[in-house]
Amino acid sequence: MKVALIQQKYHKDKKTTINQSVEMIAQAKEQGAELVVLQELHQSDYFCITEDVANFALADSYEEDLLFWGSIAKKYEIVLVTSLFEKRTQGLYHNSAVVFEKDGLLTGKYRKMHIPDDPGFYEKFYFTPGDLGFEPIDTSVGRLGVLVCWDQWYPEAARLMTLKGAEILIYPTAIGWFDEDSQSEKARQLDAWITIQRSHAIANAIPVISVNRVGTEKDITGAIDGIHFWGRSFVCGSQGEFLAVCNHEKETVLICDIDMKAVSDVRNIWPFLRDRRIECYEGLTKRYLD
Amino acid sequence: MKVALIQQKYHKDKKTTINQSVEMIAQAKEQGAELVVLQELHQSDYFCITEDVANFALADSYEEDLLFWGSIAKKYEIVLVTSLFEKRTQGLYHNSAVVFEKDGLLTGKYRKMHIPDDPGFYEKFYFTPGDLGFEPIDTSVGRLGVLVCWDQWYPEAARLMTLKGAEILIYPTAIGWFDEDSQSEKARQLDAWITIQRSHAIANAIPVISVNRVGTEKDITGAIDGIHFWGRSFVCGSQGEFLAVCNHEKETVLICDIDMKAVSDVRNIWPFLRDRRIECYEGLTKRYLD
Repeated sequence: MKVALIQQKYHKDKKTTINQSVEMIAQAKEQGAELVVLQELHQSDYFCITEDVANFALADSYEEDLLFWGSIAKKYEIVLVTSLFEKRTQGLYHNSAVVFEKDGLLTGKYRKMHIPDDPGFYEKFYFTPGDLGFEPIDTSVGRLGVLVCWDQWYPEAARLMTLKGAEILIYPTAIGWFDEDSQSEKARQLDAWITIQRSHAIANAIPVISVNRVGTEKDITGAIDGIHFWGRSFVCGSQGEFLAVCNHEKETVLICDIDMKAVSDVRNIWPFLRDRRIECYEGLTKRYLD
Repeated sequence: MKVALIQQKYHKDKKTTINQSVEMIAQAKEQGAELVVLQELHQSDYFCITEDVANFALADSYEEDLLFWGSIAKKYEIVLVTSLFEKRTQGLYHNSAVVFEKDGLLTGKYRKMHIPDDPGFYEKFYFTPGDLGFEPIDTSVGRLGVLVCWDQWYPEAARLMTLKGAEILIYPTAIGWFDEDSQSEKARQLDAWITIQRSHAIANAIPVISVNRVGTEKDITGAIDGIHFWGRSFVCGSQGEFLAVCNHEKETVLICDIDMKAVSDVRNIWPFLRDRRIECYEGLTKRYLD
């Protein structure tokens, strides 16, 4: 399966940014991609850097956005994973990944389940936690375990997708550094982010695609300087081995050909699902075992 | 907390091997270690390389072994994590990690919960899956989340230990390559083993200690050549960052000073436990969601 990861900056307005995304999708198609994955909230800046009610207006175009991205999937005959700000009704919004088929039809949606809230990442203000559970999305290129950003720190999410038959895990994401952090702290954060996602591939013996944004976005309130999104989008195979990597923060169309036969072989050699002690896992459904 | 990892070969007989372990424990104590961790089944060869009823005799000395290792913990005034072949009654054996206090008393036991069975690793023949659950062991150096080898591939085990208050995860292990595998396959296996364990540190924001054996052990039945145990014992901090590593297959006393204050800071900065969607995790207690 040939996939493309679109690693992008935000280009000052939605129209310019979307045009750039479509241009990159066209390049991906030229290179033979059947599955294209966009980064988290790829139509806008990472507005969660501050809490501002004015930003809810960004979701007013949600229905139009669906039509637009469906038309792009159809035009390029690709399975397309988008990440949109979903307005469900006023005062009720989700951080949603929406998947379109090659014919342009909406084939599935995932509402981000784990919502972060840290200085500069005020997502609990904007997004109601997802209520669709951890359900893979069936497409013509396979059953996709689409998750979003903060979900990537949760082995539970990856496992549940796998137990429901996901053949690949996909994480649109928006993560970066604060420039004021030390180089060593930045290195630890980047390495932790890569490692935890590779571990989901290993634990579940399925490939992982992670697409992160690039560029520095300022906090206009001045509470923090801003976020320096670190890019480094990658694909790894079912042993966690790198198949394709952006070792940089440039805008990139990263193409990767995933050998699904090799994936299948690994699942026989390392049969982790065989030995799970499910009768002793009840505690996983508890907040804390104190 | 100063810890020591004892990475060893099997020295042709139990007595010689144990003498070597004790000599290395003495070195660890000289260097100030308070907690010493031995590798999986450190008293013997990795006998699970074949299925042979004669090997059950290795567990006949279990009660004596407890007395012996308790006396060593007391002599060196260390908390000692051992890995023993436990005879519970005839025909009922466990792969158990037993922890002794500085005064020599047995303070807790963990019976390996996830039991592998692969060519050369016939553990389902020897060991009944543990029935003590995932319970951390309280000691004078902290609450230890002791797991064993194959458990290291299961995020569920690490999470349950953390939810029960474990302050550190500890894996005595015995893992290696088949010499006939390609270099690239060996590299993938080693990297996957390191990555999955580092991910448990990251997901749970607690340090991980992993102690693996070294040396090549032959399969006398000739079914396989044997196992080349890859060593590479390591300690990582709560962001998965390496704190101490054996980048080799030599016998080693690896000393590491773990800054538990740094661990505590990380748990506040990356509060993953806060956002778990426990009401949607029921599926984790199922075999497969088909």
